[in-house]
Amino acid sequence: MREINILKNGLIFIVIFMMSFAATAGSEDYDYEKIKDKYYADHPGKGKYADLWEAIPIQQYWNPITFYEPPTSVKGEYNAAECVTCHKNETPGWVHAWKDSTHANLDELRGLTEEDPRFYKKAKLAEVEQHLRSRGVLAEDKNLDSVGCMDCHGGVGKETISHDKDLRMPDRADCGQCHVQEFAEAEAEKEQKWPQDQWGEGHPSHAMDWKANVETGIWAGMEQREVAQGCDMCHYQQNKCDGCHTRHTFSAAEARKPEACSTCHNGVDHNEFEGYMLSKHGVIYETSGKADWDFEVQLKDAITKGNYTAPTCAWCHFEFEGEFSHNLVRKVRWAFNPTPAIADNLDHPWFEKRQEAWVDTCSNCHSPRFAKAWLDTADKGIIQGLEVEQEAKQIVQKLYDDGLMQGQSTNRPAPPAPESDAPGGFFGLFWAKGNNPSLVDRIYAEMWEHDLIKHYKGLVHVNPGGFTYSEGWARLMRRYAEIQNEDSRLREMDALKKKVEELSK
Amino acid sequence: MREINILKNGLIFIVIFMMSFAATAGSEDYDYEKIKDKYYADHPGKGKYADLWEAIPIQQYWNPITFYEPPTSVKGEYNAAECVTCHKNETPGWVHAWKDSTHANLDELRGLTEEDPRFYKKAKLAEVEQHLRSRGVLAEDKNLDSVGCMDCHGGVGKETISHDKDLRMPDRADCGQCHVQEFAEAEAEKEQKWPQDQWGEGHPSHAMDWKANVETGIWAGMEQREVAQGCDMCHYQQNKCDGCHTRHTFSAAEARKPEACSTCHNGVDHNEFEGYMLSKHGVIYETSGKADWDFEVQLKDAITKGNYTAPTCAWCHFEFEGEFSHNLVRKVRWAFNPTPAIADNLDHPWFEKRQEAWVDTCSNCHSPRFAKAWLDTADKGIIQGLEVEQEAKQIVQKLYDDGLMQGQSTNRPAPPAPESDAPGGFFGLFWAKGNNPSLVDRIYAEMWEHDLIKHYKGLVHVNPGGFTYSEGWARLMRRYAEIQNEDSRLREMDALKKKVEELSK
Amino acid sequence: MREINILKNGLIFIVIFMMSFAATAGSEDYDYEKIKDKYYADHPGKGKYADLWEAIPIQQYWNPITFYEPPTSVKGEYNAAECVTCHKNETPGWVHAWKDSTHANLDELRGLTEEDPRFYKKAKLAEVEQHLRSRGVLAEDKNLDSVGCMDCHGGVGKETISHDKDLRMPDRADCGQCHVQEFAEAEAEKEQKWPQDQWGEGHPSHAMDWKANVETGIWAGMEQREVAQGCDMCHYQQNKCDGCHTRHTFSAAEARKPEACSTCHNGVDHNEFEGYMLSKHGVIYETSGKADWDFEVQLKDAITKGNYTAPTCAWCHFEFEGEFSHNLVRKVRWAFNPTPAIADNLDHPWFEKRQEAWVDTCSNCHSPRFAKAWLDTADKGIIQGLEVEQEAKQIVQKLYDDGLMQGQSTNRPAPPAPESDAPGGFFGLFWAKGNNPSLVDRIYAEMWEHDLIKHYKGLVHVNPGGFTYSEGWARLMRRYAEIQNEDSRLREMDALKKKVEELSK
Repeated sequence: MREINILKNGLIFIVIFMMSFAATAGSEDYDYEKIKDKYYADHPGKGKYADLWEAIPIQQYWNPITFYEPPTSVKGEYNAAECVTCHKNETPGWVHAWKDSTHANLDELRGLTEEDPRFYKKAKLAEVEQHLRSRGVLAEDKNLDSVGCMDCHGGVGKETISHDKDLRMPDRADCGQCHVQEFAEAEAEKEQKWPQDQWGEGHPSHAMDWKANVETGIWAGMEQREVAQGCDMCHYQQNKCDGCHTRHTFSAAEARKPEACSTCHNGVDHNEFEGYMLSKHGVIYETSGKADWDFEVQLKDAITKGNYTAPTCAWCHFEFEGEFSHNLVRKVRWAFNPTPAIADNLDHPWFEKRQEAWVDTCSNCHSPRFAKAWLDTADKGIIQGLEVEQEAKQIVQKLYDDGLMQGQSTNRPAPPAPESDAPGGFFGLFWAKGNNPSLVDRIYAEMWEHDLIKHYKGLVHVNPGGFTYSEGWARLMRRYAEIQNEDSRLREMDALKKKVEELSK
Repeated sequence: MREINILKNGLIFIVIFMMSFAATAGSEDYDYEKIKDKYYADHPGKGKYADLWEAIPIQQYWNPITFYEPPTSVKGEYNAAECVTCHKNETPGWVHAWKDSTHANLDELRGLTEEDPRFYKKAKLAEVEQHLRSRGVLAEDKNLDSVGCMDCHGGVGKETISHDKDLRMPDRADCGQCHVQEFAEAEAEKEQKWPQDQWGEGHPSHAMDWKANVETGIWAGMEQREVAQGCDMCHYQQNKCDGCHTRHTFSAAEARKPEACSTCHNGVDHNEFEGYMLSKHGVIYETSGKADWDFEVQLKDAITKGNYTAPTCAWCHFEFEGEFSHNLVRKVRWAFNPTPAIADNLDHPWFEKRQEAWVDTCSNCHSPRFAKAWLDTADKGIIQGLEVEQEAKQIVQKLYDDGLMQGQSTNRPAPPAPESDAPGGFFGLFWAKGNNPSLVDRIYAEMWEHDLIKHYKGLVHVNPGGFTYSEGWARLMRRYAEIQNEDSRLREMDALKKKVEELSK
Repeated sequence: MREINILKNGLIFIVIFMMSFAATAGSEDYDYEKIKDKYYADHPGKGKYADLWEAIPIQQYWNPITFYEPPTSVKGEYNAAECVTCHKNETPGWVHAWKDSTHANLDELRGLTEEDPRFYKKAKLAEVEQHLRSRGVLAEDKNLDSVGCMDCHGGVGKETISHDKDLRMPDRADCGQCHVQEFAEAEAEKEQKWPQDQWGEGHPSHAMDWKANVETGIWAGMEQREVAQGCDMCHYQQNKCDGCHTRHTFSAAEARKPEACSTCHNGVDHNEFEGYMLSKHGVIYETSGKADWDFEVQLKDAITKGNYTAPTCAWCHFEFEGEFSHNLVRKVRWAFNPTPAIADNLDHPWFEKRQEAWVDTCSNCHSPRFAKAWLDTADKGIIQGLEVEQEAKQIVQKLYDDGLMQGQSTNRPAPPAPESDAPGGFFGLFWAKGNNPSLVDRIYAEMWEHDLIKHYKGLVHVNPGGFTYSEGWARLMRRYAEIQNEDSRLREMDALKKKVEELSK
């Protein structure tokens, strides 16, 4: 009897400790309503080119905030149990995923012991509950039973919703009801300000990626809306959270694995995933990580408790000065693509401090001297690529100014509004008509928008083939040679035509 | 004693139950001899261009039906135990693979309990045995001990074979001796009939892939037989089953994993594997599937018992109206490549019903409205790609008709028989001589045979980069620009040459 | 008491047995000092173009032998415990990796039983200790406690080092202090001699890869040192061992996995990893190997105890006539790239015996007849590719000899020393200025240095798409068509210019 009392007292102590922890370091520090209001206020909806395009049905799922309408096929008021009853048969996959998720098994969290890698979630849950209580969403004497259909598709604590009227596809603010800290961190990316205005405030970032999408001229202007919506399929992180934590499992462990980033961070103009996987880092993940690392461990304990012997995407990009957060832009320097405006300012304190932050990051496993040597190597290598690209740019601009591009005077239609014509413009990667873009335009567009970026990404992700022989430098040399060849061919032809004209007189 | 009797009676009841199950739903529904006879009757052997090419030694392994001869190096009559004795030393890898396989451990199946994911194999085995008994291949009072060397390389139940005379490399019909249901399902692909004859009967399918191979003009006509046989290395599913169930493990679980499809379904003109792996589906397989899903579970229980939270190749393509079968073509719509003959008939019931079947498939995890919205998006996106390709086709055809392709009038040899010349023909991907194909031919060949297909595959496998910026649309724009550029360059040159000729008169 | 005695006696017997084993088959057969001296004597340092380039800071880590200097930031004499105390905080990643490594847990090895796949390491350790004793590095009555900071960064057995004076980055010879057998085997690659001098002695090999690097003209001559050092990042195997056994885990199991090879063996001119992963072999590794094979097992027991049902990179390339060693060049035939000098000599016994050795390798899982048929197919397929490339070479050479390359007479600067100009030279993949390389140069350079090699690699790694439709043959056809097109375009233009000149007279 006495022992039971001691146990009970111990438990009470622990609960109080947890709660006090939640009270001091937890979600209450964030004013959810304020963050939410700002989130919606910032959201661009259809953006500044709204008049130029119409949403197609699938886009309601990429941007539910602006476009989602509940289906009218099912009417009536339902509670969570009824959802499950129907959807177990209608859409069993998502019901099973949810049933196995943490959301459906909150009590499991309450029973976790310190040995469990997910132990930290116990405190997290207490924190979330305390936060919900403080907002009056959860009764003072109540715990969350589970996070179920209603909570996300209606609103936390809702008992029933009208299927054809109230059904929501959750957005960032909906997830933020409980995950207010993560919501706040992720939204903080918008505060990023570049010292020489290399990018607009908050850009580039997950928090602004939908705005970046809809306010890209050729995206808005192109006629093929079903192709264009493919861009939305990555540029929706501003709208919702299941890009990294796939519904209806919503796993933290999933998002800690490099593959979670791969659907968006791959390919011709941002091959981060390929670069990582072929780097030593990725190889260690492949050979040791998949079998031996514990991805349930939170990032801050990855090395000490998670057995990590190499970094992952999340580990490096969530980290900043030893702390981990959903604000991923705090160490960004070269951003999306290398430009002179960045290259020429690397000695500015803004860039230097960020390089120092990187040295700290790398120094978790490398000597600071090694880290600095590598980061300097990467910077210089990027600049070497940039110089070649800039030289090619002059050649292409001159051809355009001289009116010598193939078909320039006979068959070069303007790109669709809001775009306007330019040599080697971004639009030419996604639109073509007649001789616009001409071959040399397109080559140059790929040079600056594919090859230079891959060169940079190969360097910063330490993938040797990525900036020497397969991608990067070797491809920049290819583009340079092609552009020079085309330049002299076009000018030779022009000279010959003039000569013949002369002779015809 | 009494308890033992109860147990015994229970076992007898179970056995009878199994047998009755086998009798009602099992392999006996299939007439093995009939299927086998049709299989061999349909088999094209060397096909209609047989006179144009000679088989090389390796091809006896890709198409044993037509080419295999037992080696003469080992003579004599051997039984299975003797095979193992020798081959344990000669070729230990395959002996070990077999020893660990289900084939070598049938008794293990008999002991499985319902909790085991492979429990279904117990009924399967009873079914197979019942089927073999009904055909007189297995004695009425006997069970299969194991499936050993003789059964596959001689014939089920054979005791010995003459190594230099009887040794067979198993074909579909050999595996079908036991796996008659799977054999029948797989052969049923040949029944596929397209409503507007977009493809020949049974094409395209695994069941006809050898025929498709040997009856492709350039395959038969090209001189480099060692290169050509590389095509056979995938186009042999019509001949044998170890393309998906690798010898000598012959695992069902293996074939359920996406990588099993990857050797053939990758690359420039059918990048299904790459598309899947970079899609959300593939990412969930990578992050959750590899660690947590049970691939021993049969496909129909993948969600409920196998823990799948995303589809695999097999899961989607084996499924049709809720049932799973080795007939993979029942939901095929765009087939190998998008063409106007398909695009213009999507409102035909044949295509509409298949889209409905896809909606059902996707609705295992998505709302039917989402599924329909996506499938419509994919269709429209494919058609947008097709339109660009068709416009380019006209330009290339016109150049050819005008005789303006580079070297067309001076150095354009005909392709080898049975091919005949055509602008941008398929042959130009595998054959080149002089100015055939010219650059613009080749560009167009890659446009329709690589880029348009990847555009389609990217869309249907929900890989955003696959149809927007890396592959698909962005590449189609590249090809279009190149073709326009080449068109105006060639015509400009032609005009100039004519002018000079005029001046020379 | 008696039982304890029996146990003790048993242990003594085992120890004596181990030692006797070590004495007969172990490291003592190798004269460490001699191998080490030769290693350093052979090492090229900066190589024959030393005057042309200056090392940059990061290169001290790729080639510590020549460039490494201890950091001056930390001064003083430290022992291993002090290293750990500091670095646990400074660079926790590497400390954790080491703490979990075999190096830090030698006693664990001493306790292994025969059932443990790592049991062989027990004998290995005894052998290493015996070897160290025989060299007087380890006292006769002592065992190694662990392999710690001092042993590698100071010298085996050192108690303390001066951080700013003595700190070493370990090279091959440092690892070889203990791993003398592996060191000797790896160094034996230098003994390779080609029968018709197709390659210089010991080339190509890991053991000479740094020399190959620094003595490549364009590497030494190019201005962009930060790009050039990217080549070092793979070409450092001659210098150190952590290319395959990543610091500070130094795992044998890691290096047995195919991904361990992937950082270097991928990409445009040696896509071995991609080829393997898409081959049947790689697919079996993916579907069975990752879950079921035991990579702790040494290679010689891979099939029997490790459960391998397909080969890995290491398994095939370490094996020679049934034995496994760190000399990977004993079955090399086509080496880096197919050339006539190899193709024309395949009937020489040197090549024939190596093919026989491959037949033996493949016969672990395939019939010798299959193996021979495949290897012959691969050879012939490679030669077919080579023939096309050689024909293209003539065309490009002729254009160069005729002075007809785009810009050849007006704007073709010489490449930097020590390179000299040549049509389609290797330098043109990494350097470009004005019209050098011209388009046709670059196309041809990619043909011989990318596409022909990938064709060969696709064949020998049995990846059908790698030598038919995606890479290899199909790309060689593309290059051939481009070169023919450019040839006739350039000649047509030249003829026209001459005609116009004629008219202008």
